[in-house]
Amino acid sequence: MAEVAIIMGSSSDWATMKETANLLDEFEVNYDKKVISAHRTPALMAEFANNARENGYKVIIAGAGGAAHLPGMVAAQTTLPVIGVPVKSNALSGLDSLYSIVQMPAGVPVATMAIGPAGAKNAALFAVELLANQSEVLHEKIVHYRLQATELVKQSNDALI
Amino acid sequence: MAEVAIIMGSSSDWATMKETANLLDEFEVNYDKKVISAHRTPALMAEFANNARENGYKVIIAGAGGAAHLPGMVAAQTTLPVIGVPVKSNALSGLDSLYSIVQMPAGVPVATMAIGPAGAKNAALFAVELLANQSEVLHEKIVHYRLQATELVKQSNDALI
Amino acid sequence: MAEVAIIMGSSSDWATMKETANLLDEFEVNYDKKVISAHRTPALMAEFANNARENGYKVIIAGAGGAAHLPGMVAAQTTLPVIGVPVKSNALSGLDSLYSIVQMPAGVPVATMAIGPAGAKNAALFAVELLANQSEVLHEKIVHYRLQATELVKQSNDALI
Amino acid sequence: MAEVAIIMGSSSDWATMKETANLLDEFEVNYDKKVISAHRTPALMAEFANNARENGYKVIIAGAGGAAHLPGMVAAQTTLPVIGVPVKSNALSGLDSLYSIVQMPAGVPVATMAIGPAGAKNAALFAVELLANQSEVLHEKIVHYRLQATELVKQSNDALI
Amino acid sequence: MAEVAIIMGSSSDWATMKETANLLDEFEVNYDKKVISAHRTPALMAEFANNARENGYKVIIAGAGGAAHLPGMVAAQTTLPVIGVPVKSNALSGLDSLYSIVQMPAGVPVATMAIGPAGAKNAALFAVELLANQSEVLHEKIVHYRLQATELVKQSNDALI
Amino acid sequence: MAEVAIIMGSSSDWATMKETANLLDEFEVNYDKKVISAHRTPALMAEFANNARENGYKVIIAGAGGAAHLPGMVAAQTTLPVIGVPVKSNALSGLDSLYSIVQMPAGVPVATMAIGPAGAKNAALFAVELLANQSEVLHEKIVHYRLQATELVKQSNDALI
Amino acid sequence: MAEVAIIMGSSSDWATMKETANLLDEFEVNYDKKVISAHRTPALMAEFANNARENGYKVIIAGAGGAAHLPGMVAAQTTLPVIGVPVKSNALSGLDSLYSIVQMPAGVPVATMAIGPAGAKNAALFAVELLANQSEVLHEKIVHYRLQATELVKQSNDALI
Amino acid sequence: MAEVAIIMGSSSDWATMKETANLLDEFEVNYDKKVISAHRTPALMAEFANNARENGYKVIIAGAGGAAHLPGMVAAQTTLPVIGVPVKSNALSGLDSLYSIVQMPAGVPVATMAIGPAGAKNAALFAVELLANQSEVLHEKIVHYRLQATELVKQSNDALI
Repeated sequence: MAEVAIIMGSSSDWATMKETANLLDEFEVNYDKKVISAHRTPALMAEFANNARENGYKVIIAGAGGAAHLPGMVAAQTTLPVIGVPVKSNALSGLDSLYSIVQMPAGVPVATMAIGPAGAKNAALFAVELLANQSEVLHEKIVHYRLQATELVKQSNDALI
Repeated sequence: MAEVAIIMGSSSDWATMKETANLLDEFEVNYDKKVISAHRTPALMAEFANNARENGYKVIIAGAGGAAHLPGMVAAQTTLPVIGVPVKSNALSGLDSLYSIVQMPAGVPVATMAIGPAGAKNAALFAVELLANQSEVLHEKIVHYRLQATELVKQSNDALI
Repeated sequence: MAEVAIIMGSSSDWATMKETANLLDEFEVNYDKKVISAHRTPALMAEFANNARENGYKVIIAGAGGAAHLPGMVAAQTTLPVIGVPVKSNALSGLDSLYSIVQMPAGVPVATMAIGPAGAKNAALFAVELLANQSEVLHEKIVHYRLQATELVKQSNDALI
Repeated sequence: MAEVAIIMGSSSDWATMKETANLLDEFEVNYDKKVISAHRTPALMAEFANNARENGYKVIIAGAGGAAHLPGMVAAQTTLPVIGVPVKSNALSGLDSLYSIVQMPAGVPVATMAIGPAGAKNAALFAVELLANQSEVLHEKIVHYRLQATELVKQSNDALI
Repeated sequence: MAEVAIIMGSSSDWATMKETANLLDEFEVNYDKKVISAHRTPALMAEFANNARENGYKVIIAGAGGAAHLPGMVAAQTTLPVIGVPVKSNALSGLDSLYSIVQMPAGVPVATMAIGPAGAKNAALFAVELLANQSEVLHEKIVHYRLQATELVKQSNDALI
Repeated sequence: MAEVAIIMGSSSDWATMKETANLLDEFEVNYDKKVISAHRTPALMAEFANNARENGYKVIIAGAGGAAHLPGMVAAQTTLPVIGVPVKSNALSGLDSLYSIVQMPAGVPVATMAIGPAGAKNAALFAVELLANQSEVLHEKIVHYRLQATELVKQSNDALI
Repeated sequence: MAEVAIIMGSSSDWATMKETANLLDEFEVNYDKKVISAHRTPALMAEFANNARENGYKVIIAGAGGAAHLPGMVAAQTTLPVIGVPVKSNALSGLDSLYSIVQMPAGVPVATMAIGPAGAKNAALFAVELLANQSEVLHEKIVHYRLQATELVKQSNDALI
Repeated sequence: MAEVAIIMGSSSDWATMKETANLLDEFEVNYDKKVISAHRTPALMAEFANNARENGYKVIIAGAGGAAHLPGMVAAQTTLPVIGVPVKSNALSGLDSLYSIVQMPAGVPVATMAIGPAGAKNAALFAVELLANQSEVLHEKIVHYRLQATELVKQSNDALI
């Protein structure tokens, strides 16, 4: 059963959000993925958000670009932690996405990640950190992942030629 | 019966949005005003938006600041024209409000005005322009309002001392 | 007879503004399209704006980039509703276009859309929403368009592979 | 025993971060608070971060302004979830704080909140949401908090005078 | 007879533009000053611009804030050199004014100065430089003004206490 | 003998500044062009600026990118009018060039044009407008140029297909 | 004999730059301070920069605001290390100062500090670090200064009330 | 033995930072180069920084992009001068890198260079300037380098065709 829901405002966001999916796969964390648009499917979004907790999700990851209302509107309709990924937009390079997601008013938090693919990866890692509070196995995987990253840096000096 | 609905995300936005109300008063256009928060009252917002047309409104004016989702989310749930007013925010001076309102994706338009009180006034004027398509009386009032503004400019040279 | 006028500051803006035209075609709304430059044809612009209402237009859509004066200057010379589309510019990616269009002073509103093609599409949709206040046929078409958009989102999950 | 650690780069950040503390008090969540500077006490910071999990913390909230390195550097040295609060800075109004906190590279996430006091409050709420995954009591409190917020909005129409 | 015309979009711009007037006074250059609004008095603006050269002006200085169309629209309707002064605006601190004035398309130049009072002073100085091409007296005054400024800098070390 | 000097900080700026040269050619205005770097040839720059007036120039056009000091430093060392062209830079798209050129302190004006090729063209046009104060022939050419531009706009409707 | 020269574009910058002086006093490093304006005293600036090394300076600290040319122009005329301090400006809060100082082209470096007083302090500290390469006494003072800063952080928890 | 350490947050930064290495080669200054990540190898970074002085380095050059913590965190753990190079990032073009590096709080300076390759070159030149305080040979090389640059500018007029 999926503990994480990955949602996005448009199928074009998938190019970014599949980074989230790939990393969850790497950690063997189950997830569902679907397109839910704040603007084109507001009723579906409300239904999804209102039922997310009882459907067994522990955390929701929402990616969106431009006037990116999806993460904040889902957060407004669930008590689950919501992680927002600002997808890079065309004219404003994701600055509009970032402001629309991170500048939430007091009362409804969205945990905002970096713009673009790096943020999508980190959304997965942050979700794993949350779940690791209840799973020593996941915690060990994070420790291992970090050690690998450290090793990769140490070996990357060979690339400086 | 009110043709215009003025909504805002928080009662603190009223300092800005009462400029809208005052100008509609000046044009003798009936309006309702209420606080509806996208994040704190999403169900109320959905109900308001879904019923707005059948409740007789012709146009909705929505003011919000920061991650300003109200105008776009209302627009997503009504076919009425929605006018958005970016309220000046604290840290980013309303740039976050502006981006969150104006950068809507294709499919759901929000007619965005300037940041702050000037935008709030213009929201009222734009609403009147819409309604004037069906009312010669309102059209005459706009013409008169414009002439007054022109006169005021011509007389304002006396202030250059 | 055309109810909508699509104007733009340069024929190079047509790449953006034909999105407006295509969407009006889809809604079977009649429109005229022409290049009118605030800076290179100011007299033509004044004449166009001053006569727009009596020429039967109900709404004007103006696209421009850079120091984008066309929407605001037309709005200053007509009582018709004017919708502004900030065309993406070269150095500043349309941020200059956006500020020049949206930051209008109190007294002369321009209904500003998003930067670029999404804004151009939404300008058409917003115009249709205005006209739908007087046309149940158009209103039905908007409802249908929205339903289609909703359906497309629901089907787009198949693209997440 | 404290489940949340509130840290900040300078005692001057307390004006912002006490919003976090006040809200945790409201939810009766235990926390420790201390000044830890990435730049002036890097060894202390490393020690704090490396031991945070075994010291029993479940989540860390870090506030910082300007070149705000504290949240990211703590996140780099713990597997606990880290929430970052960009404190409003003098010259750049917190935009430097926001970019320094949110634009983390893939591998080390920081859950970023809004600039300033609203972000500080939401950091507390987000921490409570995380902890509520393991506590039905906390979950009930969030539900209650949200209902109160909804009620307050509904009553705030009286302020529109 | 006035060689310079100082125009501004609103009497509130006078706080900035009187710096221009004061400096022209200091150089004993004759000028006219008036409020001309691109948006509220477009016909007056067109008339002013079209007749400016035959009315004897050699240069026009135009100050405006926000969506500052006045300098560019006057430049579009005269062959006289037009100097633009971006007046500091409320929400965007004059960045909107600057972009609206400086980002003119090829074909219609506006000589843009700094935002606010410094720009207003420099507009006067630049106008004097233009006129000095035909007046050795003015040229001498500029040389004298510059020498004075140099002297003031040299004496200002006493202020470093 | 050349009335206009076109200078630029690097030969790489020539891609932009040849737009200036081409337009002066079109108006049959004589000019010199040379690379003068504020940072790599400061003594040459000082010598050039200090002698520019007695060398017969009437106006100087300076293009530069990044920390674009050339226009302002030349203006500081001549009483001739100096026109600045912000060349588009790599990381910041010319925003650094624009701020470095336009934000001059009171006392030393630089007439700033738009970022990039449009600004380079307008620098030539503005120089011609200055020179036209003393040349009816040049004035006629400007009038003709403007009429051509107007005609081109009127004919460009054919491109809207 | 002074090893450090503190220069600034205007006596109004002294409010910021005295932070530099105070910190050098604290480290008992000798310095000269003077107002040198790139724009109002370019010849004086050239003379100062060209003679700085033979006058015994080891490092130059230059503060300036707006189109801040002083640090870069001094760097262009000396082989001494130049440290730049962007002074907070009025309209753009020092962003113009920062871009004008930091975005130097390849060939002439300016070591740029933060905007405003923090940057002014750090300019002094960085100068001391440079000088400490040749002075064990200074090195010890830096170590002591850092330890004090660390202690102050540790004691500042008492302020969190 | 190396006097300069070039470090960078990722091997992908090498495309930028090899400009630093190439210029140090040109000046025959010895350097070490290595990848050290603030976020993925914080312990390694601390060890490197704490031992840098006793390992014989005189200056450290650190390049990083995005939430670029490396330069500031190294500076926090050494008394050596640290030069920061903001590497151009994807979404925000290096503006995030710049703010994260330059906006250091009082107490820990980082000498910040321009975004991208120009900054990387200038980091090398600035390091050479520092070292030249103790080496007449290096000083002569800088003088020679500058003269060459001056010559290249003078010859580059041939490229203006």
